[in-house]
Amino acid sequence: MTKAQLVEQIKKKQSFLCIGLDVDLNKIPEHLLELDDPIFEFNKQIIDATNHLTVAYKPNIAFYEAYGIKGWRSLQKTIAYLNEHHPDIFTIADAKRGDIGNTSTRYAKAFFEDLDFDSITVAPYMGRDSVEPFLAFKDKFTIMLALTSNIGGLDFQTLKIENEELYKKVLKKSLTWQNSENLMYVVGATRPEYFEQIREIIPSQFLLVPGVGAQGGSLSEVCKYGLNKDIGLLVNSTRGIIYASQGENFAEKAREQALKLQQEMKEILSLQ
Amino acid sequence: MTKAQLVEQIKKKQSFLCIGLDVDLNKIPEHLLELDDPIFEFNKQIIDATNHLTVAYKPNIAFYEAYGIKGWRSLQKTIAYLNEHHPDIFTIADAKRGDIGNTSTRYAKAFFEDLDFDSITVAPYMGRDSVEPFLAFKDKFTIMLALTSNIGGLDFQTLKIENEELYKKVLKKSLTWQNSENLMYVVGATRPEYFEQIREIIPSQFLLVPGVGAQGGSLSEVCKYGLNKDIGLLVNSTRGIIYASQGENFAEKAREQALKLQQEMKEILSLQ
Repeated sequence: MTKAQLVEQIKKKQSFLCIGLDVDLNKIPEHLLELDDPIFEFNKQIIDATNHLTVAYKPNIAFYEAYGIKGWRSLQKTIAYLNEHHPDIFTIADAKRGDIGNTSTRYAKAFFEDLDFDSITVAPYMGRDSVEPFLAFKDKFTIMLALTSNIGGLDFQTLKIENEELYKKVLKKSLTWQNSENLMYVVGATRPEYFEQIREIIPSQFLLVPGVGAQGGSLSEVCKYGLNKDIGLLVNSTRGIIYASQGENFAEKAREQALKLQQEMKEILSLQ
Repeated sequence: MTKAQLVEQIKKKQSFLCIGLDVDLNKIPEHLLELDDPIFEFNKQIIDATNHLTVAYKPNIAFYEAYGIKGWRSLQKTIAYLNEHHPDIFTIADAKRGDIGNTSTRYAKAFFEDLDFDSITVAPYMGRDSVEPFLAFKDKFTIMLALTSNIGGLDFQTLKIENEELYKKVLKKSLTWQNSENLMYVVGATRPEYFEQIREIIPSQFLLVPGVGAQGGSLSEVCKYGLNKDIGLLVNSTRGIIYASQGENFAEKAREQALKLQQEMKEILSLQ
């Protein structure tokens, strides 16, 4: 998918919502557990109920790996279902990978070629040659951790190097890498005070923003400085949508919660 | 496995060698490709030929994920084979994972419980709550990236914060985390000039040292400052051993290369 196609989707749906698909067998409705592949069935029903309200889905790979081969099969079926029925939707493998060059190439092939995701999240600690192998893939996006929403995000990311925080060094350095136009960045919604400065460094890039809802981030705060001329935001919600109900009506309740966020987004976009 | 058991193994075998199992179907002997599971068969023969010379095996997970479900099956069979036939050998899932708390717990369960590895490599960028979920597992080790062997390792890891490099901040901070006694650290063999300072901060912890051999690191340089009273080093070699030959004699050639390194290690230990 190209960036222009993503922007077009956002404008058409009046939504920059991303829905996390972090499926925990202890949290999904009991009636699904009798099925052959409860994880895929759960995802399929969530996707069927919400695809008109969201522009992206983001399975967190840890939740699939935790179930071994069964989990990988559910992941494969989920991405195949999305690519077949909703090719216009942006898909994110939330994997936070990163390794030396030839190894990062392996991860890139696994997620971009074998599974055919549109994008993957990566960690920056190992530097340029751990990220460039992902950037080499045309029409695929590499979403690098910049400033994360968790408490530990402040352990190292905001340490100051010559009066500039590490995450800013990461942002600036990454712009010098080959095919840096394929970069997006993770910035937590719990850090609204940083968005203005981040937009000074990366005015045109997309930001993937987790932390709205359960983690306490505010959509309007994020939008205040985060939005740019291409909208430039993908705001993720997971638990607030997919676990809105544990009953047989879970998909309908997920749709209701997604609709609420989409309506808020539509309102915000109308004011731009 | 406990640290004492690992040290006992090292002393018994007079070896602190770790062999990387990064299996690439384009590099393994052709005659294996006809078999049902060439990756497992390759690993099994390497393990059978070298287990008396090494104290650890380290599959890099990217190489298995690149082959999807088939790759996961080969990984499962490899770790099961190791745990059944060589329970005294330390196993490392080289996965470089790290995510917010509940997600890191998923990765920890995948690698410590489902696959039953003794340890996993993790990235520090997301801070304390991304690493502590791994540290919570008793008799399992969490091997955190500190100073990596690749070129990009110098992009951020050696940036100075109040006259102290980021990797030192990472080392020091990690010692304050819960169950930090379960930590080990990745330090590249290509950075021998840093070992002395690293040992000042973490005198007693184990270091996993990649980069000897193909990447140019020197074993004697690493040992000069890296060794401690418990030996405290696991020196990894991958390509130099497992791809020593692409012929039918690959396992025998791997054994020869592993023996060379083990003999060097034995010599170094005899001088301590």
